Amino acid sequence: MRHLDLDQIRADNRRIVLQCIREAGAISRVEIAGRVDVSPTTVSNVTKELLADGLIETVEQEVRSTPAGRGRPKTLLRLRSDAAHAIGIKLAPHRAAVSVTNFVGDVLASETVPFPPHYRTPEKLIELCAQQTQQMLAISGLRSEQLLGIGIGVPGCVNSRTGEIEWSPMFADRNVPLKSALEARTGLNVVVDNEANLAGLAEIWFGLGRTSASFLLVTVEHGVGMSIAIGHQIYRGSRGFAGEFGHMKVEFDGAQCRCGKTGCVEAYVADYAIVREAGDLVGPVPIHDQQAVEEALDALGMRADAGDVRAAAIFGRAGHVLGVAIANAVNLFDPPVVIISGQRTAHLARVFMESLRRSMADNVLTAGAGLPPVKVHPWGDDLWARGAAALVLEEFMPKISLTRKRTATAAAVAAKVPSAHAVAK
Amino acid sequence: MRHLDLDQIRADNRRIVLQCIREAGAISRVEIAGRVDVSPTTVSNVTKELLADGLIETVEQEVRSTPAGRGRPKTLLRLRSDAAHAIGIKLAPHRAAVSVTNFVGDVLASETVPFPPHYRTPEKLIELCAQQTQQMLAISGLRSEQLLGIGIGVPGCVNSRTGEIEWSPMFADRNVPLKSALEARTGLNVVVDNEANLAGLAEIWFGLGRTSASFLLVTVEHGVGMSIAIGHQIYRGSRGFAGEFGHMKVEFDGAQCRCGKTGCVEAYVADYAIVREAGDLVGPVPIHDQQAVEEALDALGMRADAGDVRAAAIFGRAGHVLGVAIANAVNLFDPPVVIISGQRTAHLARVFMESLRRSMADNVLTAGAGLPPVKVHPWGDDLWARGAAALVLEEFMPKISLTRKRTATAAAVAAKVPSAHAVAK
Repeated sequence: MRHLDLDQIRADNRRIVLQCIREAGAISRVEIAGRVDVSPTTVSNVTKELLADGLIETVEQEVRSTPAGRGRPKTLLRLRSDAAHAIGIKLAPHRAAVSVTNFVGDVLASETVPFPPHYRTPEKLIELCAQQTQQMLAISGLRSEQLLGIGIGVPGCVNSRTGEIEWSPMFADRNVPLKSALEARTGLNVVVDNEANLAGLAEIWFGLGRTSASFLLVTVEHGVGMSIAIGHQIYRGSRGFAGEFGHMKVEFDGAQCRCGKTGCVEAYVADYAIVREAGDLVGPVPIHDQQAVEEALDALGMRADAGDVRAAAIFGRAGHVLGVAIANAVNLFDPPVVIISGQRTAHLARVFMESLRRSMADNVLTAGAGLPPVKVHPWGDDLWARGAAALVLEEFMPKISLTRKRTATAAAVAAKVPSAHAVAK
Repeated sequence: MRHLDLDQIRADNRRIVLQCIREAGAISRVEIAGRVDVSPTTVSNVTKELLADGLIETVEQEVRSTPAGRGRPKTLLRLRSDAAHAIGIKLAPHRAAVSVTNFVGDVLASETVPFPPHYRTPEKLIELCAQQTQQMLAISGLRSEQLLGIGIGVPGCVNSRTGEIEWSPMFADRNVPLKSALEARTGLNVVVDNEANLAGLAEIWFGLGRTSASFLLVTVEHGVGMSIAIGHQIYRGSRGFAGEFGHMKVEFDGAQCRCGKTGCVEAYVADYAIVREAGDLVGPVPIHDQQAVEEALDALGMRADAGDVRAAAIFGRAGHVLGVAIANAVNLFDPPVVIISGQRTAHLARVFMESLRRSMADNVLTAGAGLPPVKVHPWGDDLWARGAAALVLEEFMPKISLTRKRTATAAAVAAKVPSAHAVAK
């Protein structure tokens, strides 16, 4: 049964007003009311609460003299950069990148540490995360109480609700209870998500999401992932498993995938798959050694750039397969825009974008009515760190703020006051 | 920019309360408040409005004597079956099925008329729809003013916002403006949608949607379609094209599809594809003659039922391919349940469900955590007629009700009254 309670309306109002301020940078109350179409009274109440909570601050706009004389100074609102901080951890097959980010997405400190395959037990991971969190606090000069929590992005299949890693190419174990173990170890809030969703959240909070409520974001790196944004939120599905795009089957009995199945898009498009396909062109590369794979991929990319026809054909094929798979997803979701992201994406896009666009045009059923634009957003360190921060903010900020205000009798009060509906009449 | 205005809250409250009454059949105000978690005051206001609008009616519950003496008679609310009526039209490759349905989904009259290929120009279609609407009014004894509108389900790619048929296997023309042409011809509201969405809406309003907010519904008939329900609503995508599941590519350079592309799931699973695959087993069948195709398919199904290994293998293969494609969609959406629907579904399910489930288990990445249940719902005449009615109700009822209440100054008033947020404090 659906709920439409007043706490939810309050939380939505806070979220909408905060997002408006974040999008604008600095904005007056009147302008907020104009943009989000809630009443000036609501804006006034919500901003009063946000100021009291220390999430926003006022700033006086400089007064310019106008032909009609001097204007009155204007009070603008902006986010307080130190209102909240989050630790971000992104696990990749041979390294872990750690950062601490403030409320406006500035990365205050970051570090990349090796996380080699033989080191990858859940226990070692917990230890690494705990140590690196201390390290980030030391570098940034923050106290643990100033942290809202830790956000962790993991490749593979993550249950974001329970914080369990169901399956990941990084661990032999299944069902690693990362969230609960790390919360017990550090005493901090922890939230775990698929790494593609970090990129999606970074876009929603600090990127393209500010102008597009929905998008499909495809990550191409050591694996192929997807984050689905619908109405300014990550769509997660019924159990938090949505967006498993990398294992979409595009050919029966096709190429062998690391997941054990065949014909997955990842088995044609991920770093290791391209290097495997290149074969002799790059020489023998142990495809479980991610560092060696990345070096081989860079070398292959340079050959393609230099006009090597065979190298270009290999990227062309990867682009074609990715285009087919994206077309399948576009046929299902009809998104207004598609983002392709990844560490090496700017380069990859140069060598495979043409074949990708062609195969999208060939396979999107409604291509005649126009294809959604495909944007390439390199997945730099700042982007993922912002994604991890957004993950923590999204998960813990509204709850904390509501808890602070709510009393045990809130539900009883809500039942007695005139309802939103009655007021609207 | 998102909006959270009071009209929207009012409309949502109406929708939620109406849905609660529909789900319950007959229910008291107190029980509504308990179930939907809006305040009793809101329930009281909304139901007062719904009663005034003639959408619901009161009914006295019989008083039973209890050990403590006689109870007070209890006033329940239920939908008024005659509150609204809708014409439903479902176009299939060689017939059109027409119905008129009331507010609770009862089909008052229905008729299936031939719509042979040579007849299929947009002009003929408009004429047929207009005539059949008159016919339904005559049979049911309703007046045109009692109709909320006409809902039409069409195979192919439909822009449900504009009511244009972008592409359909039924017409040589592209971009047929069915909605505007039929509205001009009949003076009635018209809404056009993909036929799979009729099934999805029927499930949301009158079927599984009453207990599951989200689902994927796959239709298997002359084509293969999908309707995506998220949060009690059809997910339509940015241009209304979402759910084009039938043209998901599952094999490079695969079987030839009617859409002109190759390797689409439809090219392995639709009626014509199965008959084509059967070849000699069913003798020569003109695959553009849907009636001949359906007869051949029925014959093939009976052979499979009787233990014919070759016939069973053909259905097994179709089930396998459909299972791969559904697994791809499950990997993206992580739905709580999958429904397979279609005219012949009960029979098809018997002959291909085993291979379908096996290929889902093999290809859903999170199969280890459990597969979503797959339910088979035959797509009978009543189901689609209810879907068409739901399409009209969904599209026109909230607007009509709001228009009735709203005045030109509503926005101005909304800006002055205490906001939902202020009230919640």
